[in-house]
Amino acid sequence: MDHLTFRFELAQQLRVDSVRASSAAGSGHPTSSMSAADLMAALLDGHLRLDFDHPEDPRNDHLIFSKGHASPLYYSCLKAVGAIDDAELLTFREFGSRLEGHPTPVLPWVDVATGSLGQGLPIGVGLALTAQRLDRLPYRVWVLCGDSELTEGSIWEALEHAGHEQLDNLIALIDVNRLGQTGQTMHGWDLDAYAARAHAAGWRVLQIDGHDPEQVEAALKDAESGDGRPVAVLAATKKGKGVAEVEDRPGFHGKPLVHPEEAIRELGGSRDLRVTCAKPTGDEVPHVFAAPGGGLPAFEPGTEVATRKAYGEALRALGDRRGDVVALDGEVSNSTFAELFRDAHPDRYFEMYIAEQQLVAASIGMQVRGWVPFASTFAAFLSRAYDFIRMAAVSRANLRLMGSHSGVSIGEDGPSQMALEDLAEFRAVHGSTVLYPCDANQTVQLVAEMADRDGINYLRTTRGATPVIYEPGEEFPVGGSRVVRDGDDVTLVGAGITLHEALGAAETLAREGIQARVIDLYSIKPVDVDALRRAAAETGGLVTAEDHWPEGGLGEAVLSALAGTGAPVRVLAVRGMPGSGTPAELLGQAGIDAPAIALAAREMVAV
Amino acid sequence: MDHLTFRFELAQQLRVDSVRASSAAGSGHPTSSMSAADLMAALLDGHLRLDFDHPEDPRNDHLIFSKGHASPLYYSCLKAVGAIDDAELLTFREFGSRLEGHPTPVLPWVDVATGSLGQGLPIGVGLALTAQRLDRLPYRVWVLCGDSELTEGSIWEALEHAGHEQLDNLIALIDVNRLGQTGQTMHGWDLDAYAARAHAAGWRVLQIDGHDPEQVEAALKDAESGDGRPVAVLAATKKGKGVAEVEDRPGFHGKPLVHPEEAIRELGGSRDLRVTCAKPTGDEVPHVFAAPGGGLPAFEPGTEVATRKAYGEALRALGDRRGDVVALDGEVSNSTFAELFRDAHPDRYFEMYIAEQQLVAASIGMQVRGWVPFASTFAAFLSRAYDFIRMAAVSRANLRLMGSHSGVSIGEDGPSQMALEDLAEFRAVHGSTVLYPCDANQTVQLVAEMADRDGINYLRTTRGATPVIYEPGEEFPVGGSRVVRDGDDVTLVGAGITLHEALGAAETLAREGIQARVIDLYSIKPVDVDALRRAAAETGGLVTAEDHWPEGGLGEAVLSALAGTGAPVRVLAVRGMPGSGTPAELLGQAGIDAPAIALAAREMVAV
Repeated sequence: MDHLTFRFELAQQLRVDSVRASSAAGSGHPTSSMSAADLMAALLDGHLRLDFDHPEDPRNDHLIFSKGHASPLYYSCLKAVGAIDDAELLTFREFGSRLEGHPTPVLPWVDVATGSLGQGLPIGVGLALTAQRLDRLPYRVWVLCGDSELTEGSIWEALEHAGHEQLDNLIALIDVNRLGQTGQTMHGWDLDAYAARAHAAGWRVLQIDGHDPEQVEAALKDAESGDGRPVAVLAATKKGKGVAEVEDRPGFHGKPLVHPEEAIRELGGSRDLRVTCAKPTGDEVPHVFAAPGGGLPAFEPGTEVATRKAYGEALRALGDRRGDVVALDGEVSNSTFAELFRDAHPDRYFEMYIAEQQLVAASIGMQVRGWVPFASTFAAFLSRAYDFIRMAAVSRANLRLMGSHSGVSIGEDGPSQMALEDLAEFRAVHGSTVLYPCDANQTVQLVAEMADRDGINYLRTTRGATPVIYEPGEEFPVGGSRVVRDGDDVTLVGAGITLHEALGAAETLAREGIQARVIDLYSIKPVDVDALRRAAAETGGLVTAEDHWPEGGLGEAVLSALAGTGAPVRVLAVRGMPGSGTPAELLGQAGIDAPAIALAAREMVAV
Repeated sequence: MDHLTFRFELAQQLRVDSVRASSAAGSGHPTSSMSAADLMAALLDGHLRLDFDHPEDPRNDHLIFSKGHASPLYYSCLKAVGAIDDAELLTFREFGSRLEGHPTPVLPWVDVATGSLGQGLPIGVGLALTAQRLDRLPYRVWVLCGDSELTEGSIWEALEHAGHEQLDNLIALIDVNRLGQTGQTMHGWDLDAYAARAHAAGWRVLQIDGHDPEQVEAALKDAESGDGRPVAVLAATKKGKGVAEVEDRPGFHGKPLVHPEEAIRELGGSRDLRVTCAKPTGDEVPHVFAAPGGGLPAFEPGTEVATRKAYGEALRALGDRRGDVVALDGEVSNSTFAELFRDAHPDRYFEMYIAEQQLVAASIGMQVRGWVPFASTFAAFLSRAYDFIRMAAVSRANLRLMGSHSGVSIGEDGPSQMALEDLAEFRAVHGSTVLYPCDANQTVQLVAEMADRDGINYLRTTRGATPVIYEPGEEFPVGGSRVVRDGDDVTLVGAGITLHEALGAAETLAREGIQARVIDLYSIKPVDVDALRRAAAETGGLVTAEDHWPEGGLGEAVLSALAGTGAPVRVLAVRGMPGSGTPAELLGQAGIDAPAIALAAREMVAV
């Protein structure tokens, strides 16, 4: 069989197997798989350099299906390279199968979960940046994109960043099959429209007939000759290619074929071709950054330091101690103090500009290769990337995110800049860790712990300076809490800015003869259930105070921990829309300052 | 004073007032205001047609500061047109002042809150669409954008949609002052770079020196001659223009000037010029869509209908009854059943393609003019627009959002498509309403209620068909709940898919002699505190079940309602990362199906 014939037969096999898998499952996206089969056949046969026996090899190319719904095609590729067998292919979408509806990293060859459109390409940007600036290895990042997903703003963020960073190791294979879920896409087969956009962003563009094996081969070959620009292969294709009943016809998105046996016959029947994927060559190893070591920063108790500043200092010190720690920021590094890391470790700092989706996506890409990214911006603006954060959990990604300027305590800037939902947002991410330090030394310890933790780790910091109340080096294990002041009449629970308000309230109450226990709940998730239950048992009740809406934050974390105990709990939180004002005015207006906490405690004790 | 001299003097006044307001506040963004002063002076003087005495006039132009941090400039404009006086100007950022750190609609001339970058332009797209397709009035939408925010993907979504929809009534004034918060922007003063991007998206581009009054005048005049394309005026400007100490110098972002008195002198001193803004002319009135009326859909009890389908039917019927109801969808209208509205009311349907930020932003723009938009997509993908939803609450916007395909019960598609955080997400929005119907007739009633509700309204629907258990026309007031089955031993609380599981559990328990009360908690926020407290008092405890992570959803809403009552509550929720499988398999694995609920109830009764 000559080369192009083999390619054609392989592509037909991928189509047949996509049809078979979807029919076995009774659901899935065969037609969206069939359009890209020729691209994948060519990629596997001579272009992708990936050792499927050793997916952890750092020299491997990476392949991301940004159009994750084409999972039947991806799994058919895995079968064609011998990574899975035909029996497993037919477990597609079954309960317990590794072959989920959309690819996830339960399969060792899948870097990240996809299925929320527009995510694969920005994550690919993160991997391509990793290759060039961190690993410093010549691997390539291939991303299969759909045309429907090109309307996602996150795709544009990726185009911008890849062009700006000159990522010529990033190749987007764009399957322009014209048809979305409900009808024609915005631009149909107007490849020139897409080309103009990609060109404008600094990409090299190759326009081809995605079903012509010679054109596909020429484009992939050309794409590999890096010239400083990322490459977009714009492939005009037909959805459902090869089966007349569905080819280029609307109404067949996301459905198994009605007549799969006929379709398989029309495609030339089942095949059992095996393609040997190229392995990476050379003996390069990933770059290792020198880490001279050094201590963690220490702050003098009694001084006042913003926790965001302590974050920056801690991150810089971590960078001194560990070569695998990297930092990214969304063009606010002088507010988040990520600039301290940037100035000390410029090679490991990434300016992501004001593009929070790309900020988080790049971090996801970097952790795929074992780097330890810390990404920061205002906590309010991390909400821009919530879908990426949600999906990062599905990707089993290890992220460290820092959100600054939380709550009304930022003061004059007003509600657009105030994160008042971030605790709810991050608590409701699977397996997440949510930390909220009240002082600089605590911040340092928590930042250091985040570096070693799996999953989605979030640190909430405060804009204004807060008193340093802990000694340097004190330990604050994740999942713990700290009794900052003892007392048995009532318990005041705060974190971050409100811990200091709670301490102020306890002072006032003590003068009135009420002994309040004050708990610093710096670990919002996991939460210290034991300490809270002990407080519920030993004191007259709990008053919680948080610079956050009442829903999903510290108060509800406490209520969950105490569910069924019968302990009186009063949740103080921000209940009205704030405006501008001084931090003190706004904390007072929200009813989460020391006087408000004292009042609630008095009422509780009086009951 | 000749025209251009007046313009210059007016611009200098806007700069001086920006400096004065920021200095009075001790914070704010004078330098980002000064760069755009010439653009605004020209706009106010002969181009903007806005009756500041009658901001509700439907014929008015709209002016959105997408770069909301240039609020000192905006407020200085308000003073220049006589809308506010100098004394109020100097209340900038004070507690209780209408002049917040970033503009919000507490001022009657502000359509929407800005301050989270990249939002003003996509909302402007919504307003421009409203002008052309709903109001059918010749007003223009002027949006002042910064250059830093152009890296936001949402800006690209706006460029794409405006070009595609040929919104030549939309004019973006882009203040390319080169400097972001921390340093130079990605493209600096490379206007050609921006021009190529905007051109590619189908915009008309005018490149000018943003400080040359003749060029500014020519561009605004040209921009008004609509030719079917939206217009981007790319204005090269200098941050801090007019004050040598700060002009075009980094390090002065978001700070009052160090020497304001000298700056004011350098700018020629304070002025008290007044500009008379043009008023809209003509006697056109907003278009009114015919609404022939008709009943709401009714479903036969005992049949099975998906709540998402009932949403589509209800929406279509609402469209029959009310001409002000419009619908938008993110290219999944055959999944959300928004297609039923589209087919019945094509003039009032907007296809937003796969661009959830633009989907929500367009809805925000439409409600500014009093239209009643319903926007739909998969619930999981609304997380893409969370920052817009958060900000919509600051904008005091009235939104109706429908998220379909919630929870593990979607089955085979896997976790990327499963919303498991949406209840937490929407509960943590200020003033929000969160509804979760379990049957088709209930869905119809709730959709009808949403149309009349202020604030952010969210309806969660289920993919699969669920039994119709209510009669057509039964009422389900927001904030209420329904006891579907009575009993005094234990209470089972469900909503949506889990209500049916709870009913199944109650059947099983009844056979064992345990009488379970079943509460349909269709209104997750506001929640029916009375009914829950009554159940807590009258039964042995509550078991809640939700197809959602344990954090921030139905269970914590119940815990909040019962805080301090001492009632035993057991929260059943999804605690492990799901894969693919049948709905029944996944509900079982998550421990939220009828057997799991029955087991938890048995354990509670046994205590």
